[in-house]
Amino acid sequence: MNLLSLDKVYEAKEVLSNIARKTSLVHSNFLSKNNKIFLKSENLQLTGSFKLRGAYYKISKLSDEQKKKGVIACSAGNHAQGVALASRENNIKATIFIPATAPLSKVEATRAYGVDVALIDGVYDDAYNEAVKFQEKTGGVFIHPFDDIDVIAGQGTIALEILEQLDEIDAIVVPIGGGGLISGIAATIKQLKPTCRVYGVQAKNADSMYESFKAHKRLELSSVNTFADGTAVKLPGELTYKICDEYVDDIILVEDDEIASAVLSLMEKEKMVSEGAGALSVAAIMFDKIPLKDKNIVAIVSGGNIDVNILSRVINRALLKTGRISNITVELLDKPGQLKEVSSIIAQHGANVIRVRHNQGGEGTDINDCYLKISMETRNFEHFNQIKEDLAKKGYNILSVVQ
Amino acid sequence: MNLLSLDKVYEAKEVLSNIARKTSLVHSNFLSKNNKIFLKSENLQLTGSFKLRGAYYKISKLSDEQKKKGVIACSAGNHAQGVALASRENNIKATIFIPATAPLSKVEATRAYGVDVALIDGVYDDAYNEAVKFQEKTGGVFIHPFDDIDVIAGQGTIALEILEQLDEIDAIVVPIGGGGLISGIAATIKQLKPTCRVYGVQAKNADSMYESFKAHKRLELSSVNTFADGTAVKLPGELTYKICDEYVDDIILVEDDEIASAVLSLMEKEKMVSEGAGALSVAAIMFDKIPLKDKNIVAIVSGGNIDVNILSRVINRALLKTGRISNITVELLDKPGQLKEVSSIIAQHGANVIRVRHNQGGEGTDINDCYLKISMETRNFEHFNQIKEDLAKKGYNILSVVQ
Repeated sequence: MNLLSLDKVYEAKEVLSNIARKTSLVHSNFLSKNNKIFLKSENLQLTGSFKLRGAYYKISKLSDEQKKKGVIACSAGNHAQGVALASRENNIKATIFIPATAPLSKVEATRAYGVDVALIDGVYDDAYNEAVKFQEKTGGVFIHPFDDIDVIAGQGTIALEILEQLDEIDAIVVPIGGGGLISGIAATIKQLKPTCRVYGVQAKNADSMYESFKAHKRLELSSVNTFADGTAVKLPGELTYKICDEYVDDIILVEDDEIASAVLSLMEKEKMVSEGAGALSVAAIMFDKIPLKDKNIVAIVSGGNIDVNILSRVINRALLKTGRISNITVELLDKPGQLKEVSSIIAQHGANVIRVRHNQGGEGTDINDCYLKISMETRNFEHFNQIKEDLAKKGYNILSVVQ
Repeated sequence: MNLLSLDKVYEAKEVLSNIARKTSLVHSNFLSKNNKIFLKSENLQLTGSFKLRGAYYKISKLSDEQKKKGVIACSAGNHAQGVALASRENNIKATIFIPATAPLSKVEATRAYGVDVALIDGVYDDAYNEAVKFQEKTGGVFIHPFDDIDVIAGQGTIALEILEQLDEIDAIVVPIGGGGLISGIAATIKQLKPTCRVYGVQAKNADSMYESFKAHKRLELSSVNTFADGTAVKLPGELTYKICDEYVDDIILVEDDEIASAVLSLMEKEKMVSEGAGALSVAAIMFDKIPLKDKNIVAIVSGGNIDVNILSRVINRALLKTGRISNITVELLDKPGQLKEVSSIIAQHGANVIRVRHNQGGEGTDINDCYLKISMETRNFEHFNQIKEDLAKKGYNILSVVQ
């Protein structure tokens, strides 16, 4: 059963050639342990994600009459920006419904394309309901974020690019939210190169496509909650579910902490900003969840629209979790020279103090004592443990350690 | 006077073709206001900076005897990683001297290439002195980070790539530290396309090449101190100074805060991680310091090796400075319901509270009062001022504001 005609994907490629970036495919050293890993960097796509492709192709296919009535979308993130840019480039009026709980930065980014933004109190479903009402009133075209054959064909153009960029390709690893991206890629690649495997990746607490795929029927989750917020979809699309069932080899789950590690590693090793949803594929590879060896594997990094506030939190959390920042609380006798001695011990070990709090009469200490809270940069847990042991050897009482 | 032969640059290109990435040249929407701006993304180069090019070409030119004795380098950053990877690929022993004050992450990244790292107490000059002693003892080849014609030729390959990637090019904007990068690019482009302008950019507190360029003689600064630490060079190279004097059109200065803004904008808008030194060119363009209009300009983003700790600080500082995070301390009467009322006022304005500290008996308040320290995400200063005014209108005393 052919669920997506290649003609459509080739047509989408033609339409997109003047607007979308052909994003680069980069070999990744740090990921290439068991396999040779290449990153398809759709986080570097215009609007910061692959969503532009589907939205733009879909809008290009509208009739003149439809175009006159304008388009409507509901999204808190990448789809909003994709539709916004595509509408602007096509001179079409667009109204984007965004839940008021969405990060300010995404709202502002969407507004910056000059489209109408309707901020709706509540969560996604509330914004969706308003969008539907608005559609009924205006007769505009609702652009679905994933369950639409033209949108899927647009995303399929990524597979065509990969085939041009890499001669030997054994597998593609793709993040899944509603399933639009993987549907386009899987349906395209399996028709052109059936030996290439396609793996989907979802976050454990937002695994609607995984559950549906395993149960062989479309299932709806009662709630979704993940750091990869761009993939928080309760119910897979009808069309996208069918295509996944037909073409996808397997779907893999990753934990939120694994996703955050992947986001940090992409920044440090590849100098790329990715969002949680965008790094699902890299998380699956980093944590050895792809059952292949010595193969050429492409990981789609699907988006980079992460709030810098969140990025800052990811960094701090990851540094703590890998022993590169260590927090310690040391009890001091209230007499001169103690701060100096503790500082010297830390300096001798080559750790870098980044924050100190020196307090008298802390909880759990004698009234005459004081305590010293130190945050320091360390190389790893072992390095920190050496410092801790050295402090204990010199007679310091360690009250707590946060790692 | 021809200070760099093109033959050398073409040879370097050949040598580098199997190792260096041909980094992509991307049109940047957010930077294209007065001109059309393209980013040459050397931050996405292997080792995270352009330095690999010069180091690799230099090492490839060594005689077998020189190769046997090994190479020596002194660097706290990108040059260390460039030499390390180049040595590993050429099976040469390398000893890299790094000042102990260098960020741990850079030390670890250099070690990861399997070279010998000598951590030297003190600053760069101390490490340099040790490296010189070691060189005299072993007879190894000291690889200079910039003042070497082969190193310069290696960096010149960037200009060749740009010429292949962009048909019409009116100017190139290049970060300057010691001057190796701009020397290679300027000498190459001016021989191939003399109409193309070349602008250098330095940080205000590390402007040795700028001062030398303006004085028409090589000048040494007594101290350098900048967020763009990769460009903190007190004395330009002899050769690099001569080449800049000959080929560079002008040198422009930027402030540390402008550099930090550029680093943040590259992350948010282009999803690219850059270090301070790497973003000098973008800072000059963002803050309208290039005296051109309606031209095609290439900005070299020269490196991405920024410590994630520092990145986290850049983010926080930039958010504060642009009104996207606001801190306010409000005096409360010690009676129930006040925290709730303040929270509702903030929520009504659509700001997002990220941290609250609620204390009794703060400094500067009555003994019965308490104060509330709130950090919140706001859209901009205006947005925050509305909240502040509304709080004042409701009778709250605002003790302090940090922006």
